[in-house]
Amino acid sequence: MIPLINNHRSIRKFTDKIIPNNFLNEILTAGAKASTTGNMQVYSMVVTTQKDIKEKLWEAHFKQNMVLEAPVTITFCADFNRFTKWCYARKADPGYDNFLSFFTAAIDALLVAQNIALAAESKNMGICYMGTTTYMAEKIIEILSLPKLVVPVTTLVIGYPAESPDMTDRLPLEAVIHNEVYRDYTNDDINRLYKDKESLELTARLLEKNNKETLAQIFTDNRYKRHDNVFFSKAYLKIIEMQGFMNNK
Amino acid sequence: MIPLINNHRSIRKFTDKIIPNNFLNEILTAGAKASTTGNMQVYSMVVTTQKDIKEKLWEAHFKQNMVLEAPVTITFCADFNRFTKWCYARKADPGYDNFLSFFTAAIDALLVAQNIALAAESKNMGICYMGTTTYMAEKIIEILSLPKLVVPVTTLVIGYPAESPDMTDRLPLEAVIHNEVYRDYTNDDINRLYKDKESLELTARLLEKNNKETLAQIFTDNRYKRHDNVFFSKAYLKIIEMQGFMNNK
Repeated sequence: MIPLINNHRSIRKFTDKIIPNNFLNEILTAGAKASTTGNMQVYSMVVTTQKDIKEKLWEAHFKQNMVLEAPVTITFCADFNRFTKWCYARKADPGYDNFLSFFTAAIDALLVAQNIALAAESKNMGICYMGTTTYMAEKIIEILSLPKLVVPVTTLVIGYPAESPDMTDRLPLEAVIHNEVYRDYTNDDINRLYKDKESLELTARLLEKNNKETLAQIFTDNRYKRHDNVFFSKAYLKIIEMQGFMNNK
Repeated sequence: MIPLINNHRSIRKFTDKIIPNNFLNEILTAGAKASTTGNMQVYSMVVTTQKDIKEKLWEAHFKQNMVLEAPVTITFCADFNRFTKWCYARKADPGYDNFLSFFTAAIDALLVAQNIALAAESKNMGICYMGTTTYMAEKIIEILSLPKLVVPVTTLVIGYPAESPDMTDRLPLEAVIHNEVYRDYTNDDINRLYKDKESLELTARLLEKNNKETLAQIFTDNRYKRHDNVFFSKAYLKIIEMQGFMNNK
């Protein structure tokens, strides 16, 4: 198990080989074994394989080609709709139209997603998470007909790899671990922890290509810009409210 | 891998056997292999083993005994503090003090957590997620000295099982899967999907013990009440803001 986890790399190019139905069922079943809050299972997985719907999802996901190439796209949703309908059908008064319930359901959905990612990798498939899911939630809700109390949280594209990329670098483990309590980072810590990443050949190439002085500037100026983050913050909060999860009074 | 995933059950009683350091490092390393947004690794794990700090965490987690019993508690945090400090040290202007950035970092933290849960289980350890993390975020921030741009998202307690509970029931797979697009649930769907759960011996016992007519009422009236959900919604939103993640303008 651990060697498989350690061997993870995201796959962005896929062959046209279809995932057999029994394999797909096996990984979906493994997903549903994840811990969920109070065993309420307040998530849903929308499994999309049809070309016309995938084309719409591809557009929503900034036209990133892996959405078209991969035979299966799974959209993981925070979902209190099913549970709430059950409550209404059973003389119970559900109180899950608030932010905590949204976040609880998002946690459920994300643990399920990671189970599925690992189960798929154990079957020699490749996966990639689509961060664009939160940015484009409104569009995805429309494409997948998501009702109230359902919000997309993340997406996996899954298929058979047509590439074998190098392992992505990671910060040294001490960068992400705090022993006993949080010890804030000094400037020396930051320099030490980011040194290897900044010394990579890949970093040198990125700096040249983007004409930047530091790797951090590539993130702040090109990849994850304040203006976009603020824009998508407002959009996602609006969606959480629109889907009925902001009745916090 | 899939049999291990399928064999998951949450463990709430632990022996006093310590987790050897090399095993702990191995599972933490496996955690850090999870996909993260743009490979930014915007999460932190606070690994607590000291009795005095665990006692404080136990109090915060509604005095649930597994926090005291398990030798290791890992608090998973959305963390843009380290990344932001790196930006400042590298002449870059970070724009990660907004809700989208919080949610992005929460996703990172949760995928890491599930890697760790599975890695631990593959080493014959048991785990339990603590849903109380979001409820009691303010207290946990204080106990673990979490700075701005760091918010606790979930917690795992990890140790060697002193119980072997039955597998928890799950809804039939069709309850959580939608093919191609979302198909909303009819009353008949709800009845069919919840039938097995409602027919469990465990359910009959719960109804009698709680003197309730339906299982759903046990959730709405006893376990996850509207009043508490609203209270903790406000508290968690306040924390997200207090930690600096609500500058959405």
